[in-house]
Parts: sequence; structure tokens; C-alpha cells
Amino acid sequence: MATATARRPVLYLASVIPEIAQTIKNINPNIEVKEVKIDGDPAELSGIKTPPDVLASALKDAEVLLTDPFILGPILYRLPRMKWVMSTWAGPDKVFQFVDQSKPFPDFTLTRFAGKFGPAMAEYVVGNIVARERHFQEMRQDQEKCQWNWSARANYRLLSTLSLGILGLGEIGKEVARACQTFGMTVYGVVRGIPEDSKKSPHVSHYKLLSELPEVFHNCDYVCNILPSTPETRGLLNGDVFKHCANKKSVFINVGRGDVVDEDTIVNAISQGWLSGAILDVYPEEPLPASSKLWTCPGVTLSPHVAAVSFGWQVAEVVCENYERYVQGLPLKYQVSWEKGY
Amino acid sequence: MATATARRPVLYLASVIPEIAQTIKNINPNIEVKEVKIDGDPAELSGIKTPPDVLASALKDAEVLLTDPFILGPILYRLPRMKWVMSTWAGPDKVFQFVDQSKPFPDFTLTRFAGKFGPAMAEYVVGNIVARERHFQEMRQDQEKCQWNWSARANYRLLSTLSLGILGLGEIGKEVARACQTFGMTVYGVVRGIPEDSKKSPHVSHYKLLSELPEVFHNCDYVCNILPSTPETRGLLNGDVFKHCANKKSVFINVGRGDVVDEDTIVNAISQGWLSGAILDVYPEEPLPASSKLWTCPGVTLSPHVAAVSFGWQVAEVVCENYERYVQGLPLKYQVSWEKGY
Repeated sequence: MATATARRPVLYLASVIPEIAQTIKNINPNIEVKEVKIDGDPAELSGIKTPPDVLASALKDAEVLLTDPFILGPILYRLPRMKWVMSTWAGPDKVFQFVDQSKPFPDFTLTRFAGKFGPAMAEYVVGNIVARERHFQEMRQDQEKCQWNWSARANYRLLSTLSLGILGLGEIGKEVARACQTFGMTVYGVVRGIPEDSKKSPHVSHYKLLSELPEVFHNCDYVCNILPSTPETRGLLNGDVFKHCANKKSVFINVGRGDVVDEDTIVNAISQGWLSGAILDVYPEEPLPASSKLWTCPGVTLSPHVAAVSFGWQVAEVVCENYERYVQGLPLKYQVSWEKGY
Repeated sequence: MATATARRPVLYLASVIPEIAQTIKNINPNIEVKEVKIDGDPAELSGIKTPPDVLASALKDAEVLLTDPFILGPILYRLPRMKWVMSTWAGPDKVFQFVDQSKPFPDFTLTRFAGKFGPAMAEYVVGNIVARERHFQEMRQDQEKCQWNWSARANYRLLSTLSLGILGLGEIGKEVARACQTFGMTVYGVVRGIPEDSKKSPHVSHYKLLSELPEVFHNCDYVCNILPSTPETRGLLNGDVFKHCANKKSVFINVGRGDVVDEDTIVNAISQGWLSGAILDVYPEEPLPASSKLWTCPGVTLSPHVAAVSFGWQVAEVVCENYERYVQGLPLKYQVSWEKGY
């Protein structure tokens, strides 16, 4: 805990996510929160109307700020006294769109919302796999027709007979692995570098390098992307790499970032029969345009970027923990590297 | 393993479930299987056409039999040399409908298909809870309309904020508890007698007696019945006991047996607002008649008794293990008590 004499800077809050200020007050009334009014709708994430000049002015004395990435981006170089900014999202890519490589990086520490998305993602992935294997959608149609369709619906695969490849084994990927392994799935983890044994997850059966994607795709009934958006991952799955899924007619799940693969690649992989379908939560362009072919592509299940969402009460939990670390001069958790972009 | 001199009786097989004989042969070619042809469709479970006389005659010399409960029932007292029958289903109630209380119990050991249903049931329960909380059905409708509906779909409850009451903590109930606790759900286990601490499941937070159902219902977002059908459980939830669910507006899940509660009780509990819905896999009458009110009752999700099914390959695994125990004179696993009926 902070000592009585520790300096406790005001926590500026500029976010369209509801419930944050109240939850901080409930968790720790000794954090002074100063809310900066934002004119915008949480559902229209990039549509805030408060001008950057107004924001920069309101934040000119701020040392500590909790804000949404699309709010931070435009004022990234206009925060003269800032020491620490926490972004309310897991992925900081909306901030990095505003990083100017010709300038020095901003002179404050950036942390992100983390430590909470794993369970939400795991629920989403397991729920979608079960729903697909167990014919939930078809059974809904049976019900609408008052049809008892035993033979067709009793014909399913148990999760324990299936394998899942996870691209990206950070905190979220490990939690997805844990949940899927609970149901007996065989988990392949695809990483940039094989960790030493002591750092391997007990929930991952096979560690593979990104260069071994063809082998992973050959062996997996489901392939789940959880990679962040970085220069290395953008377009990583474009082209014909999904042809290696033809053996299992895998289902592609994307809960990472939409720019890892373009729409035509997915549509083509399904029409070629390489993939039997896709479960997509993220897209190159969001909201997904009404003109997208994905809406009606056979075997595709879509959700509007909700596999995990930043609940205000969870954002508050994370910021309160890090605030006390800040006050005590301890290293902050969930720091983003300005160099790496994640 | 069996010694070379152990007597290895022929395993008679009378079942409409496919793949059993072949899988036994693959697992253990030293088991001699004699198939008795059954004229019937696995989908029409009670509709076999082979007359009981023909069956009894074909099985007159049998000592060991693997069969389906609706086949066994009518010939229960006509198996003079039988020592052990394994039923291919988890629930033996279709056999017990033919037990004549005025006679001594049949003079053979009855075992059931067990040890395999837990994971299937756990998948079904978790998948259905996620699908409901995460608006899967509504998102399917959004997709059909090419609608990006973020605000409504981002408004959901994480499983870690929910509680589940499980009625019946046998092998299946414990597996459901384990899976739900993996996602952080708080699990209440409802039992006939509180076990001693060493026998409690680490996945159950609160053990409660059946007499404490009102308290469990008051506290649980989901209530899942996994009780077998016995004289004590039939009609157990009839009447107005679901009124105690009004606090949480719980969802009732039934994967046990359909006769634990009648249809009118469920429909009434929903129309009273005590339950916000039900997820039903079993019914008092199966197939569920087209005239049932459940098909169209708001908040109700139906499936045709498929939460767990007896896969031939899994039935074969269980019988092979028990066959070797039989040959060696060891106690058989998964014995059914003629007295208790389960």
C-alpha cells in the first residue's frame, strides 16, 4: 500500500466506457479521479466529436491518464506533463497509427488493459466450437419447425477428438489453450520463438514456430488467430496458406485483429474447400461494411468485435492496481513497447 | 490382463448402435463377439421390430450380453444363463420399467455405459450457457440482416460473474462442475447427503441438500438437473418450487431425465417470470410431441436428447475394460443396483 506521504497525482479519465469512475471510487476512494467529458458513443468507437484541441487543453497538466486509444491517438504528442497513460483496450494499434517514426517516441509510459480478456476470449472460442459441432443453429431451425431430428443432431464430434491451433500465445492465447484443454482438445501453440521448457504452458501439447504453420494447419480442426496487429502480422495469412487446412477442412477463428488476413483470402479458402468455415469477430474495416462478402459466405459466423470487451468495472480494477504501483515507484504492469508496437 | 487359461465367454451383442463390434475387434481381437441382428433404427429408439421371442431364443445360451435398454426390458426374465449384461445407455430406467416387483430381481449383474458422458454433457452445458449469454442466436439474425449491432451484443455477462446449481453430483455432475468452474462460475452442488470432506469435489463451491433447493434456486443464474430417473426424482420439481428462482430469473437446464418436472410447470414458471428460460434436452415423452407447448415457449431452447449420446466407439471401450475384469473375476465397474434402480 502507498505510504501516507506518497504523492498521489490526479488520475485523469477520458473515456466513453461507462462505469469506470464509479468503480474506481468503490475500489479505492483514495484515488482522485478527474473526468474529462467526451462527446461520443461507445458504439461508434472512432466517432468522438470532442476536438483534439479541447482535449489537449483539458489534459495539459495531467501526469496520469486513463483513456481510450482512439482518443489518445490524435493528441499523442500534445501531453507535455504526462508520465503514464493507460489505454482501455487490449490492443494499442489505434494509438500506433498516430506514432510518427520521424520523431522521438512520446515521453511517457503506455500501458494497456490486460489480464482480463483471456477468460472472455476463452468463453467465446469454446462456445463457438461447441455451437458449431453440436448443430446449435440447425437445432434452432428444427425447433421453429417443431421437428425432432435425432439422427442428424446426434451425429457430432466430441471436443476431445478435435485439435486447435492457436496463433499467438500471450496471456489470452494461454487462457484459450487452458479452456480448450479442459475439454480434452489437443492444442498446438504457434509462436515467434519456442520458449524454454520452464516457460511453456502446460495446456499446450505442441509448440510450433510461425514457419511451421503449414504443418499446424494440416493437423488442426480449428485454427484460432490471437496475434496483435503489428507490421509483422498484418497480412500474415493472405494468399494460399489456408490450402494446408484442406486435410482437416479446418474452421478459422479470428479474435485477434482483422488485418491479419483479407476478406478475399477467407472467401477463397472456403470456396476452394480448404476451410469448412470461419468464426470471425474482427475485420480489416470495422464496422464490417454491408457490402462485405463475409455476411453471406457459407459456413461463416460473424460477431461485431465482442469476443472480449473492455468492461468499465474491469478497466477500473486494472488501473487501480497499476496506480498503486505507480505511486510506489514499482514497474507498471502491461507496458506497451513503443519500439515493438505491442 | 487375462491369463492364457482364463475362460473367455462369448460376448453377445444386440444393439442398434453402429460401430460397436468393429471397435471391440480393433481394441481387443481376443474378445469373441456374436452379433444378434436387430431390426430397428437407432433414431427410433423404442421402435425395434425384432420380436422378444426371437431375441430370447437367440440369447438362450448367452452368459455375457451388451445391449440397448429398450431391447433388454421385454426379455428381462427370459435370459436363463445370463451372468452379466451391460446396457449401452447411461440411464437404466428403460430397463426398470420392466422390473416386476412381485418377482425376485433378475439373477445377473447389470452394468451401464458410464465414464464417458461427463465431458459430452459439460460441453453441452457450457456451450449453451455461452450461446445464451453471448447472444449467439441474435447475432445470427444480425448476420442475416448484414447488421453490425455492437452495443446490444457487447452487453453480456461473463461466466465468472454467474452461478450454477447442479442437481445430482455423480460422475457427470462433477464433470459439469469442473468445466463450469474452469470458466470461473460459482458452483452449487445439490445432493441427497453431504459427502465427507475427502470425497467432496474441488470444483463445487457449496454443497447443499435437496431440502435446501429454495436457497440454491435463489442464488443461481443457472440450475442444471442431472438426476437420474428414480421414484424419488420423478416429479421432484413439479409445482411452484421454481418461484425461488425469481431473484435471479434463472435459466433451467435439463440434461438428466425428462420426468423430473412436467411441461406445465416449466411453461408456468416462465410465464410467471420465475425462470427467464430453459435449455431442455430431455422430456417426459420422447420424441417430444409436435403438440408440446415447449416448442414455442419464449426463452426455451430445445435439443432432441443429444446432450450426450452413446457413441459406438465409446461403448466398445467401456465393455472391453469390463470384459477383462469379468474374465479375471474382478468387480465390474458401473454396476446398477436392482434395489435402487440406478
